[in-house]
Amino acid sequence: MNEAHHPQDPPLVDRQAILNARQHIATALHRTPIASSAFLSDRLGVRLSLKLELFQKTGSFKPRGVLNKLMHLSADERRKGVISLSAGNHAQAVSWAASRFGVASTLVMPQGSLQSKIDATRGYGGEVILTAENLLDTCLMIQRERDLTLIHPFDDPLVIAGQGTVGLEIIEDLPAVDVVVVGIGGGGLISGIATAIKTLNPYVKIIGVEPTGACAMSQSLEGGSPVHLNKVNTIADGLAAPFAGHHTLRHVQKYVDQVVTVDDREIAEAVKLIIERCKVIAEPAAAAGLAALLTDKIDLIPEQSILCVLSGGNLDIARLESLKTVR
Amino acid sequence: MNEAHHPQDPPLVDRQAILNARQHIATALHRTPIASSAFLSDRLGVRLSLKLELFQKTGSFKPRGVLNKLMHLSADERRKGVISLSAGNHAQAVSWAASRFGVASTLVMPQGSLQSKIDATRGYGGEVILTAENLLDTCLMIQRERDLTLIHPFDDPLVIAGQGTVGLEIIEDLPAVDVVVVGIGGGGLISGIATAIKTLNPYVKIIGVEPTGACAMSQSLEGGSPVHLNKVNTIADGLAAPFAGHHTLRHVQKYVDQVVTVDDREIAEAVKLIIERCKVIAEPAAAAGLAALLTDKIDLIPEQSILCVLSGGNLDIARLESLKTVR
Repeated sequence: MNEAHHPQDPPLVDRQAILNARQHIATALHRTPIASSAFLSDRLGVRLSLKLELFQKTGSFKPRGVLNKLMHLSADERRKGVISLSAGNHAQAVSWAASRFGVASTLVMPQGSLQSKIDATRGYGGEVILTAENLLDTCLMIQRERDLTLIHPFDDPLVIAGQGTVGLEIIEDLPAVDVVVVGIGGGGLISGIATAIKTLNPYVKIIGVEPTGACAMSQSLEGGSPVHLNKVNTIADGLAAPFAGHHTLRHVQKYVDQVVTVDDREIAEAVKLIIERCKVIAEPAAAAGLAALLTDKIDLIPEQSILCVLSGGNLDIARLESLKTVR
Repeated sequence: MNEAHHPQDPPLVDRQAILNARQHIATALHRTPIASSAFLSDRLGVRLSLKLELFQKTGSFKPRGVLNKLMHLSADERRKGVISLSAGNHAQAVSWAASRFGVASTLVMPQGSLQSKIDATRGYGGEVILTAENLLDTCLMIQRERDLTLIHPFDDPLVIAGQGTVGLEIIEDLPAVDVVVVGIGGGGLISGIATAIKTLNPYVKIIGVEPTGACAMSQSLEGGSPVHLNKVNTIADGLAAPFAGHHTLRHVQKYVDQVVTVDDREIAEAVKLIIERCKVIAEPAAAAGLAALLTDKIDLIPEQSILCVLSGGNLDIARLESLKTVR
């Protein structure tokens, strides 16, 4: 943890903001279960638990942050309609949540997104715009042209607070947890979880995991400011954010103990193990944490209680097949 | 339900036998969760619940019956070691349960069984014998040669009573259920579930589902006695038993309201939906019930509470891929 603080740093989300978020979103969402895996526990020599956020509405944790943000928009902001950018899970969440509020939504998604994620996003009622150009630039251009309200996929205190409700559930349902492992895309999920847990129990270690082909947060931590990558290349589309946020970098600096990277082959192997042994569909982004554990990237103490957040399960069968050939 | 009863009919398992089974096996096994699916409920116009027996130890309901049987063996029967026949899930359960008791196990499996099921059976400690010959004949021959104790995969009152604990959990956790849909291989699971539920609430409908390529129970019901099929042909290896049992036929005659059939294409589509929408791994055998619902083979009353038993999740990624090409 880096305690250095500059006057221009954005303020940290606090515990109360996360508790408030839960008040706002709890009735619309699932409190997801935590499962244990005897097989993986034996293999790793620890007590391994899995937070099954893949059972969340829309198939990932994303609606937690989106709903909290939508709750806080003004009537005028809602009336304009919302826009966001996403490779899939956040797009599905915005489309679903906006429809619940009767708000129009526009989702800018990269060409090549999983067809099942595109279909699901349209299915919830949102308009999908596919682009081969820079995703953020395209989104901001359309936002200005159409005068829409932007819902940032991660770099927003209200989104971070919503994702933090995952952390509340972890520490309430598994109070003796020693280490929590979370994948990092833009960093919204780990920022929220780390804040929720560290502000209650600073002895719990929080470890972030990035794909080697999209490690904006690792580079941002090294450089001390948010890095934008020219390109990303990973099967973990849910972790393929090409930049870290100002807010998320600050939370990771403050509350995350370590960030490690895993490659696509390691991720694919972890997906296979979760599917075959735990019987749940983890998308590659959700399996990154287990991949890091299986490849000894995280120092473990025998019999420790380790929890991996399985952040989403939006994976179509066609993609599953392609995982077999990842090298 | 056919109430005709002949003196030579085997006795029915009663409710107390199932309650006793639970006493014997509960501490070793999971009480599996029941999940709902908003997507599938909307699509079917009912309230659909899924009994997630795929999270059971060894990945299917099978250890319930096996453990109950093992508990009742004499010391001498255990000392000899046990043998059974199975395409996979029962083999895994026997191997796992026997190892817990320090009992040697031999499992006769058909050539062409899923490699992941063969590997898992060996991994739990049992000896696997693969055969291209008639499975039951081969098993009985080896049993006599080696003087082993047979654990029948379904046609045994203690096995049926063990599987019946699934029914106890259903009626306790979802007391307002209207219809329970269960796949039929040899009929052990549906016999136990139907007994547990009908003896408490005869108004709950129990529907069985067989693959068209392995419909021994349907034919046995028509003929009034257990039918042996010359060959079976279905992707649902967990339902590919080539014969119905004397005990199981009797229970199905007594307690099951209807048995319907589904083809492999319908099963494959249901597997895909469960994986993509419910985020759990259902093997084809487990998806047969949903397949019957999706293809209007079961008469539904709008807003009824329907429960499908997802009986197992032992499916390797290679098999998943092949499901796409089922026609």
